[in-house]
Amino acid sequence: MPFEVLKRIPGTEARLGRLVTAHGVVETPAFVAVATRGMVKSVSAEDLEDLGVQILIANTYHLFLRPGAEVVAELGGLHGFTSWRGPWMTDSGGFQVFSLGAGKVHGVGKIASIFPGEARPSPAGVSLVKLTEEGAWIRSIFDGAKLFFSPEEVIRVQRLLGADVILPLDECTSPFHDEAYTRAAMERTHRWAERALSVFETTKGLGPNPAQELWGIVQGGAYEGLRRASARTIASLGFPGFAIGGSLGKSKEDMYKVVEWTVAELPSDKPRHLLGIGTIEDIVEAVRRGVDLFDCAAPTRLARNGALLTLSAPGFKLNIDNAKFRRDKKPVDENCDCPTCRRYSRAFLHHLLRAGELSYFRLATLHNLRFMVRFMAWIRGELAQGRLPALEKVAQ
Amino acid sequence: MPFEVLKRIPGTEARLGRLVTAHGVVETPAFVAVATRGMVKSVSAEDLEDLGVQILIANTYHLFLRPGAEVVAELGGLHGFTSWRGPWMTDSGGFQVFSLGAGKVHGVGKIASIFPGEARPSPAGVSLVKLTEEGAWIRSIFDGAKLFFSPEEVIRVQRLLGADVILPLDECTSPFHDEAYTRAAMERTHRWAERALSVFETTKGLGPNPAQELWGIVQGGAYEGLRRASARTIASLGFPGFAIGGSLGKSKEDMYKVVEWTVAELPSDKPRHLLGIGTIEDIVEAVRRGVDLFDCAAPTRLARNGALLTLSAPGFKLNIDNAKFRRDKKPVDENCDCPTCRRYSRAFLHHLLRAGELSYFRLATLHNLRFMVRFMAWIRGELAQGRLPALEKVAQ
Repeated sequence: MPFEVLKRIPGTEARLGRLVTAHGVVETPAFVAVATRGMVKSVSAEDLEDLGVQILIANTYHLFLRPGAEVVAELGGLHGFTSWRGPWMTDSGGFQVFSLGAGKVHGVGKIASIFPGEARPSPAGVSLVKLTEEGAWIRSIFDGAKLFFSPEEVIRVQRLLGADVILPLDECTSPFHDEAYTRAAMERTHRWAERALSVFETTKGLGPNPAQELWGIVQGGAYEGLRRASARTIASLGFPGFAIGGSLGKSKEDMYKVVEWTVAELPSDKPRHLLGIGTIEDIVEAVRRGVDLFDCAAPTRLARNGALLTLSAPGFKLNIDNAKFRRDKKPVDENCDCPTCRRYSRAFLHHLLRAGELSYFRLATLHNLRFMVRFMAWIRGELAQGRLPALEKVAQ
Repeated sequence: MPFEVLKRIPGTEARLGRLVTAHGVVETPAFVAVATRGMVKSVSAEDLEDLGVQILIANTYHLFLRPGAEVVAELGGLHGFTSWRGPWMTDSGGFQVFSLGAGKVHGVGKIASIFPGEARPSPAGVSLVKLTEEGAWIRSIFDGAKLFFSPEEVIRVQRLLGADVILPLDECTSPFHDEAYTRAAMERTHRWAERALSVFETTKGLGPNPAQELWGIVQGGAYEGLRRASARTIASLGFPGFAIGGSLGKSKEDMYKVVEWTVAELPSDKPRHLLGIGTIEDIVEAVRRGVDLFDCAAPTRLARNGALLTLSAPGFKLNIDNAKFRRDKKPVDENCDCPTCRRYSRAFLHHLLRAGELSYFRLATLHNLRFMVRFMAWIRGELAQGRLPALEKVAQ
């Protein structure tokens, strides 16, 4: 039984579970740390083990370009190549097709209004992508070369990379796509999902990990009819797990509704992954609505930008660049057991960041990752006690 | 007895020793890791402990600018601020006075021909320094503000920083300075050394570390008469240890002669530090000529640039950026016990470097630092056995 629901909160979709992979067990709800190019930025595999990180997600598009899927396969797949021997996921590259294509033209990310910096329509955004029924032509961000990503090629590449959970190529839509376009893209995503399943069968034995699972991705934007239809269609194809992809609307409320509509149509005994989402609030809200897995670059990117996660600061972030920390002997968070908080003061981290020292990036990342690990453990603890996690409780 | 010679190699100046500081013992000959702004670039204090690094050197000029000496003192001095609780040295800022002044005008570093990239006369080099008998006016590299560095101020700052071994302000000369200028600079350095000693006495009790030692710096460029005179004069002032500073000539042969002349005039029972030098060959040659301590940014800078130290590669460097390592499953050095070699392949390090991943910098730095630690231990082992270290032996 690769996924097991251990406990449900009656009257809600929230549940405690465990996902069993060939490379270890993931207790859910879980945070999947983002290791786009094979390692979480600024840290090492030992660091991730020490922090209690359970599972990583790498990116098919980036690894396809460098060092190449054949190279990774030859070196033992992601597990052997990177030396992270725990569970791996790989994203399909579908989000890059979007972010270099329609996302660039519309100047948006997954949600129109959540990330102000990413939500501006960008008049200079020219698509690097040409989508056809066959697949996606993308210009390489490295040398401008034209690359072709088909549903089949993306599965073949992920077979070689050898992650435990892999995903089919999908077409993400933007919050500014109308219902007609979103429907057409969703239908294409469904056809691509069938092609992916088919080639997943015929490539059995390719690559270093015979125990891979291919999960389905639900699309449909923030249109209720489309989301529900997509979830039903993708569920009907027999995937052992599901990801919620694409546009999540124009507000947090839209996102929570998208999750509700999707979860309502998915089988209740299969794992559900919300792609690319991971603020503290969003995780709690999505767990309450039945999501089991989250990947998000925000905790590590925030760390590098000076925002250190703590439940005791407004917005759950302490901006270590703030001049008020120049002489502050306290750790970032007195309740944190991470290697950074155990040893370094806010003043020293402030100094390292201001001085542009490389050491800063790792120490900050260790803290934010450990925060996420402990935060997810707190959520699981609440669920284990039969309680729905509520931020008002921890923030007190 | 703060410094003890444990064994000498008859007929040479080479010796095995130990330097006792208030924060630990340094077995000599030793490599002093460069932590300019309070931490060795890209690593942490735990890393340095795990690697067996014995002692660090920070820079007075950089810490004076950021975060400021008073801030460091308030946070417990370098030991408390950085959490590296082992021995610390601080350089005086004299080298920055040079590198932002005459070194910039002449386009050179400590030796004219050793570092090709640093040895070009730079026609655009305009001095940011104005030297007077009183001290040095320097324009801040941050905001262009004028700063005044006097021998007295530099001691006061180092009292506040609290390193175990501190150095007086000196005037470094370039290999292109003539004998007359080099003599005048040397004589000024001697007068500054006396002023430093005097204020070192009157500032007793200032700062977090009452057990500081002030060592003297020998100048005189690559002129035999001047070097010998400087060593005799500085030795006569009663410093408990000595650093060899300034220009070391126009070739490695010049440098080795400078070391010989200087060592010949210094007391044989006091420690000797060769400032800013640290290639494998230079360390062996200088140890044979009686040097006990070396600081050099090269091992860590080389790591960040892709050059990983190993006795088995030509020039003792393996260029991990080379395409031939793309599929190489071996560790950087099969004989190395560093955390990087124990776990990661050349292929993965090559990938991380090519991908510009921050994780690379730490893994590479860990390797090169561990190499230096083991290399110095090998030198001490040879001396302990009564043998003069010889590179021909290890390179086989």
